[in-house]
Amino acid sequence: MPEKFVVIMAGGRGERFWPQSRLRRPKHLLPIVGEKPMLTQTVERLEGLVPMANVLIITNAEQRDAVIDVCPMLPADNVIAEPVGRDTAPAVGLAMELVRARDPEGVFAMLPADHVIHDGAGFRRVLGAAFEAAAKQSVLVTVGIEPQYPATGFGYVHKGEQYDELDGLPVFKVQRFVEKPDLETAKQYVESGEYYWNAGMFVWTVNTVDAAFAQHSPSLYASLEKVKTALAAKEPIDELLAREYPTFEKISIDFALMEKADNVVTLPSAFDWDDVGAWPAIARHHDKDAAENVIKGDGWVEQGSGNIVLSENGDGHLLALVGVDDMIVVRTKDATLVCPKDKAQEIKKLVKQLGADATWQKLM
Amino acid sequence: MPEKFVVIMAGGRGERFWPQSRLRRPKHLLPIVGEKPMLTQTVERLEGLVPMANVLIITNAEQRDAVIDVCPMLPADNVIAEPVGRDTAPAVGLAMELVRARDPEGVFAMLPADHVIHDGAGFRRVLGAAFEAAAKQSVLVTVGIEPQYPATGFGYVHKGEQYDELDGLPVFKVQRFVEKPDLETAKQYVESGEYYWNAGMFVWTVNTVDAAFAQHSPSLYASLEKVKTALAAKEPIDELLAREYPTFEKISIDFALMEKADNVVTLPSAFDWDDVGAWPAIARHHDKDAAENVIKGDGWVEQGSGNIVLSENGDGHLLALVGVDDMIVVRTKDATLVCPKDKAQEIKKLVKQLGADATWQKLM
Repeated sequence: MPEKFVVIMAGGRGERFWPQSRLRRPKHLLPIVGEKPMLTQTVERLEGLVPMANVLIITNAEQRDAVIDVCPMLPADNVIAEPVGRDTAPAVGLAMELVRARDPEGVFAMLPADHVIHDGAGFRRVLGAAFEAAAKQSVLVTVGIEPQYPATGFGYVHKGEQYDELDGLPVFKVQRFVEKPDLETAKQYVESGEYYWNAGMFVWTVNTVDAAFAQHSPSLYASLEKVKTALAAKEPIDELLAREYPTFEKISIDFALMEKADNVVTLPSAFDWDDVGAWPAIARHHDKDAAENVIKGDGWVEQGSGNIVLSENGDGHLLALVGVDDMIVVRTKDATLVCPKDKAQEIKKLVKQLGADATWQKLM
Repeated sequence: MPEKFVVIMAGGRGERFWPQSRLRRPKHLLPIVGEKPMLTQTVERLEGLVPMANVLIITNAEQRDAVIDVCPMLPADNVIAEPVGRDTAPAVGLAMELVRARDPEGVFAMLPADHVIHDGAGFRRVLGAAFEAAAKQSVLVTVGIEPQYPATGFGYVHKGEQYDELDGLPVFKVQRFVEKPDLETAKQYVESGEYYWNAGMFVWTVNTVDAAFAQHSPSLYASLEKVKTALAAKEPIDELLAREYPTFEKISIDFALMEKADNVVTLPSAFDWDDVGAWPAIARHHDKDAAENVIKGDGWVEQGSGNIVLSENGDGHLLALVGVDDMIVVRTKDATLVCPKDKAQEIKKLVKQLGADATWQKLM
């Protein structure tokens, strides 16, 4: 078994959880669910799977210090900042070169920073099997999430035949990666039982993913060759990235590799999973009162149900709802949001508008 | 013309404008509409109608200091505190005795403390004519408000034939006072053109209202006799009220006198009037944005209409609504309210619940 690494992608701009999230304090730096920042939980979940020295985080310059703060268990050098965002394929390529510099024969997982997974043992078991699958054959492994409803916000993985079993877990060939579907298509996917959600969790060896870049994404492959050479020459990473990274093709890993490759396989997630993509999702992870209200901090709901009320605690300020249903009300030190649960996708627009306003830009 | 007095009833518990209003800071002490407290505006509106020395305010012990504060134009002794609330008839009786002690032949108006009237000149003209009507004959004068919609929250005055004209204003006999009607009845009243809203504005001489108490409310009349005797004997008012007032029959002026008397007359209000009974009413008195939102202070409405957003100003805290319609959102230093406009009558229930809670009682 080659040495195992994990690279966590912790970018994001923190719009959907405004006013708790901000440009420089996105969801993965906040304890949206649980007592610790999501990223901290993501790193701690890896303990026992890989050595902490082999866990790397790709973030951006604005968030690097905060990431280091919430991940004291990691060497600070393991936190790498993209000078600019270039979508996920360049980040995977960068991860590949970072791992290659440590072990050219290494196998590594790419993981999102801010998903909720309570069953850490189940997660490590699946990841362990995925490492094994990726090391055993030249395959691009994706972890498939059993769909819980006909989501239109995720891509899907259409599984093919089972070709292996590792640690008691089935490994399937993948027929194809598909884009976010419309609702009707999503319903068909879920009904068929043949589709998984694509949660952006991948495992592969340096060699396998390198070959995939060479075959399916020659422009990126050429860019990555320069990074490889510079890293081998021990050029400081920040200087190197400042020079090379902005020239990388801006493209997602799905477009660049996953939808083109024919050696993709999937392991179904045998653990709970929730990406908690916006405020309404947090209701799934908190205690509710008899009227299905989530109330955290100094909140009060009089004659209302299904609300999410989050308030600063202990400053003597009461957030009181009267006759309100299905509303998100979130109060922080400098802002209070009121938004119906079914309009939560509009919060991004507010944040954008604030960014264009001289007075309120500071709240972005 | 006998000497003219005005007695303003400034009680109330400040529930409907929570969180701006509080038990000790009800609506009349707040600038709900306009730049000054409603009570201050009410007193200032009387300038030119009666000398300030002849303006009295009946309030309660908790609010007396605040009332004196917002009415520096009045002698502090003109602010009288009820030791307990006994509804409006005892307050009118007390007002009668206070006026009698100053001028036994006096004529006085009873006025609410917290209504919005922009046309001060029109108001003084009607009040002047009402004083004249009350001094001319032994009648109980009520100011009738032209109904603006079929309100079920006001009592109505059914006018009879016109019997006089004073200062160009018609004076009508009143057929009867009627209770708050149901919606169907209210519609009939409004359609008939024969009904006015009863806004609780009355004018009468000491002698006329004294005779009315004697005839229609003998129990109260007997109680008032004791106050008369004690005031004549120069007993300090607070001691006197502490002893006598709690024994007064608790009854409204409508029940005690107006619905029984046959010498009631009415002058239609030739001025604008709004009791601004709850948060939704303030929209009638503020500028609105293109989407009919009232925004005062640091508020922001993204994709929403018909909202009332009132926030503390200048403390750098933003109250932001996204995708919300017809909502009342009010933020003060220690509380934030979120309530749909059509549920505003439920705010009272919240305040009551807070009063029963050890932690939040302080916000009552």
